[in-house]
Amino acid sequence: MYRTHTCGELRICNVGQKVTLAGWVQKVRSLGGMTFADLRDRYGITQLLLDSPGDLGREYVIQVTGQVVERQSKNPRIPTGDIEIKVDTLKILNKASVPPFTIEEESDGGEDLRAKYRYLDLRRPPLQRALALRHRIGQEVRNYLDAQGFMEIETPYLIKSTPEGARDFVVPSRMNKGQFYALPQSPQTFKQLLMVAGYDRYFQIVRCFRDEDLRADRQPEFTQIDCEMSFVEQEDVLNTFEGMMRTLFKNVLGVDIPNPLPRMSWYDAMDGYGSDKPDIRFGMTIHEITDLVQGFGFGVFDGSQYVGAIAVPGGAEYTRKQIDELTEWVKRPQVGAKGLVYIRLNADGSVKSSVDKFYSPEQLAKVAQRCGAEKGDIVLALCGPKRKTQTQLGVLRLEMGNRLGLRNPGVFAPLWIVDFPLLEWDDETQRFYAMHHPFTAPKPEHEKWFYSDSKEDLEKVCANAYDFVLNGTELGGGSIRIHDADMQSRMFQVLGISKEDAQLKFGFIINAFKYGAPPHGGLAFGFDRVCALFGGQETIRDYIAFPKNNQGRDVMIDSPSEIDPVQLEELQIDIRKE
Amino acid sequence: MYRTHTCGELRICNVGQKVTLAGWVQKVRSLGGMTFADLRDRYGITQLLLDSPGDLGREYVIQVTGQVVERQSKNPRIPTGDIEIKVDTLKILNKASVPPFTIEEESDGGEDLRAKYRYLDLRRPPLQRALALRHRIGQEVRNYLDAQGFMEIETPYLIKSTPEGARDFVVPSRMNKGQFYALPQSPQTFKQLLMVAGYDRYFQIVRCFRDEDLRADRQPEFTQIDCEMSFVEQEDVLNTFEGMMRTLFKNVLGVDIPNPLPRMSWYDAMDGYGSDKPDIRFGMTIHEITDLVQGFGFGVFDGSQYVGAIAVPGGAEYTRKQIDELTEWVKRPQVGAKGLVYIRLNADGSVKSSVDKFYSPEQLAKVAQRCGAEKGDIVLALCGPKRKTQTQLGVLRLEMGNRLGLRNPGVFAPLWIVDFPLLEWDDETQRFYAMHHPFTAPKPEHEKWFYSDSKEDLEKVCANAYDFVLNGTELGGGSIRIHDADMQSRMFQVLGISKEDAQLKFGFIINAFKYGAPPHGGLAFGFDRVCALFGGQETIRDYIAFPKNNQGRDVMIDSPSEIDPVQLEELQIDIRKE
Repeated sequence: MYRTHTCGELRICNVGQKVTLAGWVQKVRSLGGMTFADLRDRYGITQLLLDSPGDLGREYVIQVTGQVVERQSKNPRIPTGDIEIKVDTLKILNKASVPPFTIEEESDGGEDLRAKYRYLDLRRPPLQRALALRHRIGQEVRNYLDAQGFMEIETPYLIKSTPEGARDFVVPSRMNKGQFYALPQSPQTFKQLLMVAGYDRYFQIVRCFRDEDLRADRQPEFTQIDCEMSFVEQEDVLNTFEGMMRTLFKNVLGVDIPNPLPRMSWYDAMDGYGSDKPDIRFGMTIHEITDLVQGFGFGVFDGSQYVGAIAVPGGAEYTRKQIDELTEWVKRPQVGAKGLVYIRLNADGSVKSSVDKFYSPEQLAKVAQRCGAEKGDIVLALCGPKRKTQTQLGVLRLEMGNRLGLRNPGVFAPLWIVDFPLLEWDDETQRFYAMHHPFTAPKPEHEKWFYSDSKEDLEKVCANAYDFVLNGTELGGGSIRIHDADMQSRMFQVLGISKEDAQLKFGFIINAFKYGAPPHGGLAFGFDRVCALFGGQETIRDYIAFPKNNQGRDVMIDSPSEIDPVQLEELQIDIRKE
Repeated sequence: MYRTHTCGELRICNVGQKVTLAGWVQKVRSLGGMTFADLRDRYGITQLLLDSPGDLGREYVIQVTGQVVERQSKNPRIPTGDIEIKVDTLKILNKASVPPFTIEEESDGGEDLRAKYRYLDLRRPPLQRALALRHRIGQEVRNYLDAQGFMEIETPYLIKSTPEGARDFVVPSRMNKGQFYALPQSPQTFKQLLMVAGYDRYFQIVRCFRDEDLRADRQPEFTQIDCEMSFVEQEDVLNTFEGMMRTLFKNVLGVDIPNPLPRMSWYDAMDGYGSDKPDIRFGMTIHEITDLVQGFGFGVFDGSQYVGAIAVPGGAEYTRKQIDELTEWVKRPQVGAKGLVYIRLNADGSVKSSVDKFYSPEQLAKVAQRCGAEKGDIVLALCGPKRKTQTQLGVLRLEMGNRLGLRNPGVFAPLWIVDFPLLEWDDETQRFYAMHHPFTAPKPEHEKWFYSDSKEDLEKVCANAYDFVLNGTELGGGSIRIHDADMQSRMFQVLGISKEDAQLKFGFIINAFKYGAPPHGGLAFGFDRVCALFGGQETIRDYIAFPKNNQGRDVMIDSPSEIDPVQLEELQIDIRKE
């Protein structure tokens, strides 16, 4: 061993001991004829007292032996700040070229440069903390689920391409020419098979792959905490994983979350927050005001299916310019509203609105009251098709929450969203799609509608599906699955999938279900996102050791890349010419 | 929840309780007007007492409610054997088609059929035990390494193809046309980068991929326990992972292994066992007898570089026919010996040999003595080039160990093999190859030879490399890595890799090492094999939930398979015509 202690370990009680440390030189400075150096490793930083600076450079790897002495000027900001090492012998274990950016809490390197030298960026304390947090969460998840009788079972990565869902990454098979494996988008099929196989409680922290055009903060490979249970109803699944999240919050962050967690129906979430992943750290909920504003001659409202509004605290002070800016903001394509109506509740009790000429102050006051607005607030209203307008109000609500500093990443407000609609009607293709996936079961009490031929009935069917939402982000979700062959046939029928097509696409799992599938259900959490939110960050990139960029490239290793013609020959494939 | 208890839980103390169980019907039998059924789940089997057999079929999924009663005829072979459930209500949760083979401890299904219906084979208790063992070992590994300060860090699966080593599986990139990712053969590069990045102690239980022609008991995807440590010497690595294996043996199997574990040099292993993964559960070691048998006119021995022998206990009783069969056995191409010489030490003290006419009884007795043979034993000798002959003797030794029942899978004899040669000379290409990999460091005390230009010197260089061997199987191995740029250059020079080529193939890691690589080393264990050997099995297939067959196919999901022309179009690749 190259050391007796780590660089984060020595304290005042170690004074007088002879120790050997090893690590990286973070900084060297001369002061009044003495030379100080900061020696860094994963565990911390220890100050060295040297006879001379020698030829030490930044990021040199060294080994020093010396005596622990009490510092003259202590540094209370670091745990080793009371001591330093009076170095007797110093050995350079490895020299280092000057790194292309500073390796400290904050770096001076740009994003691209740090991505290229990811192994140096990973030396920075924020990234070390991020990966340490990730390790800790993984351990806690495994220990909790193990204690609950779950077995971690590895499912294959070389599986079969299925035409449903997102795009697969495929892997040409050399031994089976012209054929391909696919990388799993999730172990969904396999975990359901494990329930058929009687494993009762399965989990896996597992990589998943989706060849999608990358939006911000999506990765082509990502990690799930994937779980499934047999002989359970929705209540059992929610309780089990609420327990897991409660344990994580407590053991990892020391945070107590409510017991039980709040639950909100999908309908209430859409109506009140304009989102199926509401951020409930703050109020400012959406209120429908259609009934209060139609029939007074304001054509825009009169011609809309829905009018809704939020009350922004303190907003009465917004200037004309600020309101114009907000109006432009909601009209951007990312939000897509046609315009913005406001009702300002001045401190003096007067009301001012952009639609004064259509409504009396009393009528406007009624709207304000419905929204819970008080003196000094502003009511912002949008109109249009119901769900679309609610979504726009939801986006506006989050923006106002951000502007008002109501979205503190150190505050955690988790909840379950339940009672999702089972089916979504698509006007374009004139058919239903499964909102979750085609194996999700309708709620038993809605089965009468599920077997009805009326579109209206089918739209009313709710699923035993649920999402775990934290601070406006969906961290996980799942459902109780269909375990009955007849119900599964009905589902395919509703989705307009013919028997032949169902057999082709899902025949293998349908077949497996004939041999005694137990009632089962489960869910999956996005592990990368759980880690990021626990770390108080919105982006997952720093919680993944070696992420890819928005073009799906790993710029550090320069991948993907061209391969040897011999490899193409062996695989019997050609790259198409332009 | 569909149940109050599992099928493995109820005992005599539960008699009188009203319970609800759910599971699979394993067996129904009528006896004296009563109907009994065995209800099975992952946790066990509970006997049900029913009014009538109804229409229950094998593998039906049912839920029953009833009272726990004491059995009239108890079954001491199962933990629930004292009780049964007097069923009040029975609900069929799911019917089941008749399974294609019996789902019991031993199945009547052939291997292919069971592979196709893997989800049914997985219901069988031996496979349930195998996967439960695997889960337990994984948990113990993680808890041990976590306690030792290791962090589990996930490395990417979509990486870059490198032309060295085994064949890569590649993944065409849609967003980067004509370019490919590769699936990792191991996270070797990334774990070394994590050491450069200062993570100090890394591990990962991780899938690896090799597109090799599959030999028996190889899988195209397999799992490693992959580990790396910084600021360590070989001794530190061995102690850490010896501790891990000791903990596994103790916590999983309740077995104490020696402390410290035996260590054997690669040279002693080859000389004494003809293998770098010796099975030391039994003796019967190989002894060189060249000096005792040359110069007496027996041309076959006189013309050989090496003559070696083993003494087989009790072998003096072998008949002529048995010895002929053994001779044919060693001449099979899988062993490849030219012939077999024996010396029989009869119980009456006389000596009988196939080479009697060249050697006196005294000379033969000397050979027998060297081999440790006693009266009643037989000495079996082979000759030829040294290492080749030792390997043949090693194979013969294992065969005789098998025949004599000396290889009990319930006995565990782990050891470390150390002091591997750094380099292997290949006569065909007239160059050295790295025995482990090109990043393995020579032993510090052998550096003088490493920098020598003489082939003889270079052949003497040992590596700080080590294998963990259990019962004749290599479970893991690793090395101390080169962390010095100059030494790495020398290594490439010795391997005949030009600077340009080294830069092309390894440039990225060589570059990373310029920024302050710490001394580091590590190892990887084959997780599938660790599980199999802990389970007392030789083959890994039952310790993998969904394995592939020898053609790399998953016959259950029928993968690999053809993909949609649209997918090929998107990837801009074509399958070559015949």
